Amino acid sequence: MSDLHENVSMQPWRGFASDNYAGVHPQILEALTRVNSGHQVAYGDDSITAELDERMAALFGRPVGVYPVFNGTGANVVALSSIMNQWEAVVCTNTAHIHMDEGGAPEKVAGIKLWTVPGVNGKLTPDLIRSAAHDFGFVHYAQPGAVSIAQSTEMGTVYTVEEVAAISECAHELGLRVHMDGARIANAAAALGVPVADFTINAGVDILSFGGTKNGMLMGEVIVVFNPDVVHGVEYFRKSFMQLNSKMRFASAQMIALLSEDLWLKSATHANEMAQKLKSAVEKIPGIAIEVPTDANAVFARMPEEVVERLQSKWRFYTWDSPTLVRWMCSWDTQESDVDAFATDIAAEMAARNAN
Amino acid sequence: MSDLHENVSMQPWRGFASDNYAGVHPQILEALTRVNSGHQVAYGDDSITAELDERMAALFGRPVGVYPVFNGTGANVVALSSIMNQWEAVVCTNTAHIHMDEGGAPEKVAGIKLWTVPGVNGKLTPDLIRSAAHDFGFVHYAQPGAVSIAQSTEMGTVYTVEEVAAISECAHELGLRVHMDGARIANAAAALGVPVADFTINAGVDILSFGGTKNGMLMGEVIVVFNPDVVHGVEYFRKSFMQLNSKMRFASAQMIALLSEDLWLKSATHANEMAQKLKSAVEKIPGIAIEVPTDANAVFARMPEEVVERLQSKWRFYTWDSPTLVRWMCSWDTQESDVDAFATDIAAEMAARNAN
Amino acid sequence: MSDLHENVSMQPWRGFASDNYAGVHPQILEALTRVNSGHQVAYGDDSITAELDERMAALFGRPVGVYPVFNGTGANVVALSSIMNQWEAVVCTNTAHIHMDEGGAPEKVAGIKLWTVPGVNGKLTPDLIRSAAHDFGFVHYAQPGAVSIAQSTEMGTVYTVEEVAAISECAHELGLRVHMDGARIANAAAALGVPVADFTINAGVDILSFGGTKNGMLMGEVIVVFNPDVVHGVEYFRKSFMQLNSKMRFASAQMIALLSEDLWLKSATHANEMAQKLKSAVEKIPGIAIEVPTDANAVFARMPEEVVERLQSKWRFYTWDSPTLVRWMCSWDTQESDVDAFATDIAAEMAARNAN
Amino acid sequence: MSDLHENVSMQPWRGFASDNYAGVHPQILEALTRVNSGHQVAYGDDSITAELDERMAALFGRPVGVYPVFNGTGANVVALSSIMNQWEAVVCTNTAHIHMDEGGAPEKVAGIKLWTVPGVNGKLTPDLIRSAAHDFGFVHYAQPGAVSIAQSTEMGTVYTVEEVAAISECAHELGLRVHMDGARIANAAAALGVPVADFTINAGVDILSFGGTKNGMLMGEVIVVFNPDVVHGVEYFRKSFMQLNSKMRFASAQMIALLSEDLWLKSATHANEMAQKLKSAVEKIPGIAIEVPTDANAVFARMPEEVVERLQSKWRFYTWDSPTLVRWMCSWDTQESDVDAFATDIAAEMAARNAN
Repeated sequence: MSDLHENVSMQPWRGFASDNYAGVHPQILEALTRVNSGHQVAYGDDSITAELDERMAALFGRPVGVYPVFNGTGANVVALSSIMNQWEAVVCTNTAHIHMDEGGAPEKVAGIKLWTVPGVNGKLTPDLIRSAAHDFGFVHYAQPGAVSIAQSTEMGTVYTVEEVAAISECAHELGLRVHMDGARIANAAAALGVPVADFTINAGVDILSFGGTKNGMLMGEVIVVFNPDVVHGVEYFRKSFMQLNSKMRFASAQMIALLSEDLWLKSATHANEMAQKLKSAVEKIPGIAIEVPTDANAVFARMPEEVVERLQSKWRFYTWDSPTLVRWMCSWDTQESDVDAFATDIAAEMAARNAN
Repeated sequence: MSDLHENVSMQPWRGFASDNYAGVHPQILEALTRVNSGHQVAYGDDSITAELDERMAALFGRPVGVYPVFNGTGANVVALSSIMNQWEAVVCTNTAHIHMDEGGAPEKVAGIKLWTVPGVNGKLTPDLIRSAAHDFGFVHYAQPGAVSIAQSTEMGTVYTVEEVAAISECAHELGLRVHMDGARIANAAAALGVPVADFTINAGVDILSFGGTKNGMLMGEVIVVFNPDVVHGVEYFRKSFMQLNSKMRFASAQMIALLSEDLWLKSATHANEMAQKLKSAVEKIPGIAIEVPTDANAVFARMPEEVVERLQSKWRFYTWDSPTLVRWMCSWDTQESDVDAFATDIAAEMAARNAN
Repeated sequence: MSDLHENVSMQPWRGFASDNYAGVHPQILEALTRVNSGHQVAYGDDSITAELDERMAALFGRPVGVYPVFNGTGANVVALSSIMNQWEAVVCTNTAHIHMDEGGAPEKVAGIKLWTVPGVNGKLTPDLIRSAAHDFGFVHYAQPGAVSIAQSTEMGTVYTVEEVAAISECAHELGLRVHMDGARIANAAAALGVPVADFTINAGVDILSFGGTKNGMLMGEVIVVFNPDVVHGVEYFRKSFMQLNSKMRFASAQMIALLSEDLWLKSATHANEMAQKLKSAVEKIPGIAIEVPTDANAVFARMPEEVVERLQSKWRFYTWDSPTLVRWMCSWDTQESDVDAFATDIAAEMAARNAN
Repeated sequence: MSDLHENVSMQPWRGFASDNYAGVHPQILEALTRVNSGHQVAYGDDSITAELDERMAALFGRPVGVYPVFNGTGANVVALSSIMNQWEAVVCTNTAHIHMDEGGAPEKVAGIKLWTVPGVNGKLTPDLIRSAAHDFGFVHYAQPGAVSIAQSTEMGTVYTVEEVAAISECAHELGLRVHMDGARIANAAAALGVPVADFTINAGVDILSFGGTKNGMLMGEVIVVFNPDVVHGVEYFRKSFMQLNSKMRFASAQMIALLSEDLWLKSATHANEMAQKLKSAVEKIPGIAIEVPTDANAVFARMPEEVVERLQSKWRFYTWDSPTLVRWMCSWDTQESDVDAFATDIAAEMAARNAN
């Protein structure tokens, strides 16, 4: 049996597969030690979680409901359940994480049906919402109860403040509530350059999954309740749906560290910049097309399959739906040198291929 | 807005409320730093989780399935689902954590019905299993599919090797599978003084929730599959039931650290000893009765309600079902001086009360 | 392949197994033909179902919500879901049909956890409710949200008007809603000799499963909503939980026929009388003990196992939990001669046994 | 309060809204009376249901599993659950009844996720299946476990024998099981003019929802199991999912009557012919376009919205997705004179409109 120390002494590496592949930001790791003395009441009645409440209130400009959970899927399913009736359905894009990447958790844990619509670069619009939100009162059609949008989206695009506001307005007119999946909300905030409140609480969003894991936390997301009038039972759903962290101080401390000194925005800004750098480097290479606007920290590029395969033998990244569409994610720890090296390899492989 | 540092600089304290109130063992915190360099594949395909597989195989004497999850409820519900048909039910005691303390997660997440039986000091027996496992093939009676026992139990008792083996034998004869909720398996192993394999894999248990959080981890439990012939879809249930950790290396590293140098057993042995010390100190106080055998790290005592209340104004602990029945939990970080101080306070309050 | 006509030309028989074994009352069968001309709007927007609304309003003294469904389990699960939050639990006896006889439907279809208490002859009491309805606001304990009682009960007993009122008062004080499983409500009404409204809508019951199948209908129960303030989404739950009858006129017509000319009460009164007759005949036989008060149409008797077995070779009936406890059900079509013949056989078998 | 007799003495009418609007075929009503003597064992252990087993075996050419249920949604959800693992998903068209018209029952009752694909005139193809059935073993993507097709489809089209066989072959190659929603299987059989076994059991279908309600039954469908190797727990799912009929003899007798003397085929053939007659009459009217092939008993036509509205003031029928697309259903009781009168009205309204 090998020893852990040896095992991880192998050469560290970084790739462009996912912001989940990155580790924990050192300031966040330090925060764990700082709160690790003595006992604290479990399950959230601790002083550190109380502190997180204040931080979130400050961030959003007024008191909000704050519910740390384990992961993004958990945040989404608990948040959606708390704004819906049990018989209702959620309108989202067909590229949404809740549809494509959560192993059916909304359906299997909470019985939530999804009404999916195509999306435009991964984004929902009022017209698309209306195309699915109809037949109110007709029992045969699972009744639309909420809209869920991701900010930034699975396609790396970012809703403008106006787009979010228009979606909320449309949803509310129809009697639907609005959930935002903010697994990468920091990247959206960094991209938009406006206060996060502007495109959330002040843009009509009712409940938010505020992401931490993809932005340098060890694990943890926070459900943030903006509109308590349409939200019910978050604390019970969190427990019953197995997302209640017993030693919650360690989750809250991570999020506090993330919010401190704008670490969340600095990390996201850096990741976004690395994506821009990568995009700039590859978009001029003949034979490569940027398929989706690079608003945040993801680059979606179309390129020959054989080049994809050769690159994947050296670098970790995923294709997306098609063997010729690649997704390259940058993260808080992506180095300029990583981008340079990767872009150089891409250019070389493309050149070799084009030479044939 | 106060500052975190100030906030937590308040005097640290320790109580007897729960092993969940304790912090993270320093060796486990260190392990986080050690695995925090570079990228790792997310969701468990990392080298640290592979290392955990080997550690668990060594612990149990042969290869086992290893599935880290977030928390105990998650471990239990995923494990149970993976050994049951969707229409089946689980036999357990009416004091079981899955029944009393999981907010209905088995029912609400997985549709699992529980057939509860009274239990003897929190323990199941073959006769009790038979009292609930009947009417096979009769569709009106939710079909018994599995037995779930906790080791150590919610009442702080520990099954002997023979008791577990007898339960497994009875269950298997009836066609049921056997789950062990090992949220405090370390305390049981320490109490029994035998290899953990003896009362798990070698005693007929099919699947185990191996606890970490209550024994000094920041968060994390591991589902361990012993009998793959009766287990299906653990990896899918883990995902769909929202228990799949993306940066899993940090969960696995904690568990590896817990298993290294017998830290898990040392910590549990210490907690058990502190419980024995507390029990010895209070059992001789007139007016206090130890209600349940103190097999592991919990002391259940009967005492006057007014004394309970006065003690709770100074020390944190819970009553159990009745205002005169208290549960005192010891943990890896309980100090001898904590026990001495607490026992002294108890004796003083009882003396004051008896003097009236 | 045999022909249906031949097949059913075998000698008809009647037993004491279940009121579900009986056929359809002729007046109810006739009603099917009467409404079978032309088209009607499906799913309940037909003129016959509108007529049923009026009949129910007349029966209960004011407008009520009327929702025909397929069967009793469906009525119970839809009704309970419509008075609960998704995270809540139901308090009921451990002999309740929803617990013992519905194949886990409450848990599996609706994620409803049941907090069961022992019951006194199958009846709940305010004290028993309080023993399970506690820890409000404590997320670990599945939150009590409703009480469910059966009238008459699975044990053949009947709540008095005062007992129902006391249960409702207790439940409402605790913030719980009240469901009545009236699969055999006609037998209860007949036994009590008071208007059905007295022990339902006027006794604080919020929602009722009004039974038809066990009282001479082909199939069908009706959910009756008394307190719309605490009921939500019945029409959606009915659809989503697969209890919405498309050709509903035929279900409604049966229930109208049942309510017409007091057929429901006459049939139930007859069944109750047959049970009294049977009880009177057997209670004086040495070696037989009536175990539960014979309030309605069920007789529960304790007798020697060997006699049970001999009787079952000639008559159909079930044992209950134990091979020496039998349940004999009378139905709308039980004949006096059936009771006489059965009682004679029982007496003869007991005499033969006692002679040995 | 009005009297039922008066109430239904209003002039009977027939429309083209749905085959669910039609009543019960007289031969089926008669069958209820024929089996209504004496007691029968409840829940399916009766002699009439045994007779149905034989009838179905004869129909499909070998013994099959036969499970009567209440309605089509129930048949579909129970059948699908019995061929899937709990974590899996179903591939179907986005016009499928299980997706659009069941109030989310698959998701809400059984946690089944649907992977929908566009469909060609409501029909699935092997290529469409492959477009959704991928990423096997990738836990984030809800694992495809089954294919569900409707025969005839929601769009009134009918799969050929070869099309069904190709779908089954593709599905089985991918490891998926095949469910057929046969709510209108009689119309498909009538349309194809081949034995029903040819496009079901002999074409690789694993499990079938055999429809009765839309073809002249009062209520009732039958789940038919062709491939027991891939089906598990139908009897338990039927009970737990609230689809177990207690007085099952009356459901079985209806289905036996439907199958007797080819009543099912005669009724469906008639309905199909009425649809052809209607289609022929309207397709030559200028301004009306038949949008989907009229394979069975549904006519889908495109026509001006104002004409639709005027016609709906006199005749009952539904629009489909758009105010200019209408669906006209014919049923077992549609009369030639109904079609003539309706076609005349359509022609007149169109003429009036075209004259403007």
